[in-house]
Order: sequence, then structure tokens, then C-alpha cells
Amino acid sequence: MAGTTVFAVGGAAIGMAAGLDLLGVVVVGFSTALVGGVLRDLLLGDAPPAAFRSPLRLTVAILGSLAAIPLRPLLGAGSGVVVVLDAIALSLFAVAGAEKALSLRANAIVAVALGAITAVGGGVVRDVLIGRTPIVLTESFYASAAILGALALVLAARLRLDPRWAMAVGFVVCLAARLAAVAFDWRLPVFTG
Amino acid sequence: MAGTTVFAVGGAAIGMAAGLDLLGVVVVGFSTALVGGVLRDLLLGDAPPAAFRSPLRLTVAILGSLAAIPLRPLLGAGSGVVVVLDAIALSLFAVAGAEKALSLRANAIVAVALGAITAVGGGVVRDVLIGRTPIVLTESFYASAAILGALALVLAARLRLDPRWAMAVGFVVCLAARLAAVAFDWRLPVFTG
Amino acid sequence: MAGTTVFAVGGAAIGMAAGLDLLGVVVVGFSTALVGGVLRDLLLGDAPPAAFRSPLRLTVAILGSLAAIPLRPLLGAGSGVVVVLDAIALSLFAVAGAEKALSLRANAIVAVALGAITAVGGGVVRDVLIGRTPIVLTESFYASAAILGALALVLAARLRLDPRWAMAVGFVVCLAARLAAVAFDWRLPVFTG
Repeated sequence: MAGTTVFAVGGAAIGMAAGLDLLGVVVVGFSTALVGGVLRDLLLGDAPPAAFRSPLRLTVAILGSLAAIPLRPLLGAGSGVVVVLDAIALSLFAVAGAEKALSLRANAIVAVALGAITAVGGGVVRDVLIGRTPIVLTESFYASAAILGALALVLAARLRLDPRWAMAVGFVVCLAARLAAVAFDWRLPVFTG
Repeated sequence: MAGTTVFAVGGAAIGMAAGLDLLGVVVVGFSTALVGGVLRDLLLGDAPPAAFRSPLRLTVAILGSLAAIPLRPLLGAGSGVVVVLDAIALSLFAVAGAEKALSLRANAIVAVALGAITAVGGGVVRDVLIGRTPIVLTESFYASAAILGALALVLAARLRLDPRWAMAVGFVVCLAARLAAVAFDWRLPVFTG
Repeated sequence: MAGTTVFAVGGAAIGMAAGLDLLGVVVVGFSTALVGGVLRDLLLGDAPPAAFRSPLRLTVAILGSLAAIPLRPLLGAGSGVVVVLDAIALSLFAVAGAEKALSLRANAIVAVALGAITAVGGGVVRDVLIGRTPIVLTESFYASAAILGALALVLAARLRLDPRWAMAVGFVVCLAARLAAVAFDWRLPVFTG
């Protein structure tokens, strides 16, 4: 739920930076906040997706998007605040996706894939809507951080750590990987040619 | 069903204006016509989606796309005919989405969200396919009209209006809001950083 | 499964040609390989999608994407090898989609539509991710070949051919149509104005 709010604020901030109007900002914030979880539930066969079973998540996604408007001075495009908030939401979604997959008895590889898809799905749709190349393709350590966090959670669960501790481990690994990648400008090799 | 036909014709008209060939026109018309309803059914957990349970809707979507070809002189890009047809389809889908959600006992907020998603889903995919910024982001009173129509239907249902009357109310509200917005060039405020 | 591998290799090759880094290449290869089958299963109401029920397909999609890297010299953009591999994967997916739909007792028109959607879905998402106009809109005989192949399979099944033979017929028809279209530069008419 915290991840939903943060993704809504971050998505709406990017929508404002792209010059959208009030409704466009809400549409982008709403989509960023909800698509990851909806994809996860559809891919796990958990229908209808949790976000559409109660008004709670929809309301949070809309209010989060609206909250970004008065916060605009803090949330300029590429500002540190947006990058850190986005990294937090990425980490929350990566562990929420992997944990839900494990709790439905999914295989470890499936759980890692679903953690990563849950984490990056909202951002991919946000970027496609506003016509940017998806961040998942332009920044090496965006999906990579989500994969590492989900992997850490799955390993911790295999070691029979309490689920809450396993989620904490996954969250910290994903957040640390993402922030370190931004701070030190980590890149994976490019293949052209 | 009428909405499916109209969205197919309108989607195909936009595909022709974008310089696509026969098949591209059908692909775009078909997607515009079907995506909204498919999303609605997936988000309501009503699987398989109605459009793929019988050949009827698929056939209507293909025939509607093909029908746009001889109608080409009437359907130039940005012509009034296309805008009015599109507003009618938007309104039909907004009420169909909200009504189906209510009939499956969804919460009022969920029903409004699903009405709007059903109405705009096809157009978003159409615009992403042909590489345009989605109309839902560029025109303030596109998704807004769908939200208002779905909201009117839900309020009418709360007031225990007969479902057919509630749908008529929602349809008229959505259509009036959309056409008034086009006629008077209504815009919501823009937030740039 | 063979189709999954081939689409992963082909998708990754297109990702390399687009100048993506290691992770971007894997993301594009993975998406190209899996989206068609996931869409098919969601549209048939077969949840969770087969690709997420076991680690097998996910692993194949990732390994196929990685395998494209050492094969890079063979897989230049627009090279004949990529076109032929892609045509093979298109044909495998068209028959797999139509056959699964028939085996779940879908109507003939639904089965043809699902064959085509399964075949082209991965390529559409791949092209949207990297910001290209989807191949399904730019090449007349891409989706057309998939439709012809799926149609051939459905007709063969109607004639009570053994399912394996029906799949072989559909595969050959799709592959022949696609390769002939590339070789002879077949185009459908364009409607502008």
C-alpha cells in the first residue's frame, strides 16, 4: 500500500514534468501505481486482481496522484527526491510480488520473475504512455535491482527466515542496489553491432 | 455491441489516416474495438473475456474495421463524423463497463474506475500502436467524460433507478460532456515544473 | 518451447541492434518470447498462464536471450537469419495458439484470432518497448501469415485430420506465406486520404 502511494506520487510527478494536464497527471500516476500489482495477480491466476476487489487501492492511487500537485516544487524531473521515492516503491513492489508468488506456492524462479515484473510493470506502462523509452531498458540497475531484491527474498525464505524478515532482506537489497547504481552510475555492458 | 462496431470503424479510420495498409487498418480497428472490454473482464475476474467466448464480437470488430474502408471519404482524420462516433462509442463503453461491474457486485468506486478503463482502453492501445500520444493524455475531457458518465450511472443505480434508465443517464452524461468539451475546447489546468 | 527459444533469440538480437545493454537485451528477449503465450492463456481463461506455472519457460526465455549475445555476428539487424528464425517462431506460435484454443473447444473464428494474437503479441510488445512502429502494422504479411496458418490448422482440424498433422499443415502454410512475402516483397493496398 505504501508502494502504491509512492508510485502514484512519482508517476504523477513525471506526468507533470511531461506537461500533462490535471487528468493526464492522474491517469499516469494511477497507471504507475496499479499496473505492477494487476500484472502480478493476472500472472498468478488470482482473479480479480486485488486492486479491483475493494476501493482502497484505487482511492490511494488517485489521492497519491493528486498529492503530487501541491508537492510539485519538491518533485522536479530528475530530482533526488523522485529518484529515492521511486527506488523505495520499486523495492516494496519487488518484495510484495515475490512474497505473494511464494505464498501461492510458486517455484523460486517464477517468484523472482514475478517480483521483478511487479516492480517494473507500472514504470514501463508510465513510460510507454508518455512516449519515453521505458526506464527498464535505459537504466541497467532498475530491473536488475528488483531481480536482486526478489532473489534475496526467495533465498531468505529458503533458509526458513520468518517471512517478515525475508521481506526486509529483499527490500534492503533492492533499495541498496538501486541507490548505489544511481550514486555510482553503474552500467552493464552494451552490445552493438 | 454497437460500441464495438463504432470503435472498430473509428479505429480503422485513424489507421487509414496514419497510412497503414489493409491489414494494419484491421489490426488497429480490431484492437480499438476489443481491448476495453477485454481489460474490463480481466479486471473483474470474468474469464475468458466475453469477446473470446463466441465469434460474434470478433466478427463485428473485423467487419466494422473493413466497413471503414468504403466510408473513407466521410471519415477523414479529425473530421466531425469520427469525433461524434468516437464520443458515442466512449459513452456506450463507459456505461457497459460500470454496469457490468455493478452487476458483479463491485464497489461504487471500482465500478466508476472500470467504466472509465473500459471506455478508454481501446483508444490507448490504438494510439500506442500507431505511435501517437494517447488521446487520454492529450484531451482533458476524454477520460473525464467517461468518468462522469460512469459516476452518473452508479449514482442513478444507488437511487434505485431501473438499470436501463441508469445506463441511459450515464450514456447521456458522458456523451454531453465529451461533445461539449470538443465544442467549447474545455481544458483542465496544466502543471509544468 | 522451440518457438519460445527462437523468439527469445530474435527479440534479444533486435534489442542488441537497438543499442541496449545486457539487461535490456534480456528484458526484450524475455518479453518477445513470453507475451504471446501469456495473452493466449489470459484470453482463454486458462489461469495462471502456462509460462508462470513452472520455471521451464521462463528459464528458456532467459537462456535464449543470453544465447543471442555470442551469436551476435550472425544476427545483425535485418539479416536473413533473424528473418527466417522469426518466421519459424511466428509459425510455431500461430499453430500453438490455434491448437490450444481448439483443444479448449473454442469456436473456429476465436481459434484463428487466438492463433494470430499468440503469434504477433510478443513482437508487438517488443516493438513498443524499443519505440519502433510494431512490425504487425508495417509488414502486411506478418499477421496475415499467422492468420493463414491458423486458418489452415482450423480447416484441417474440421476435416478431422490428426491434430499433429493439422499443426504441421498450419505451420507450413504460415512459414511459406511469411517467407514468400519477404522474398517477393508482397504488400497489401494502402488507404490514404
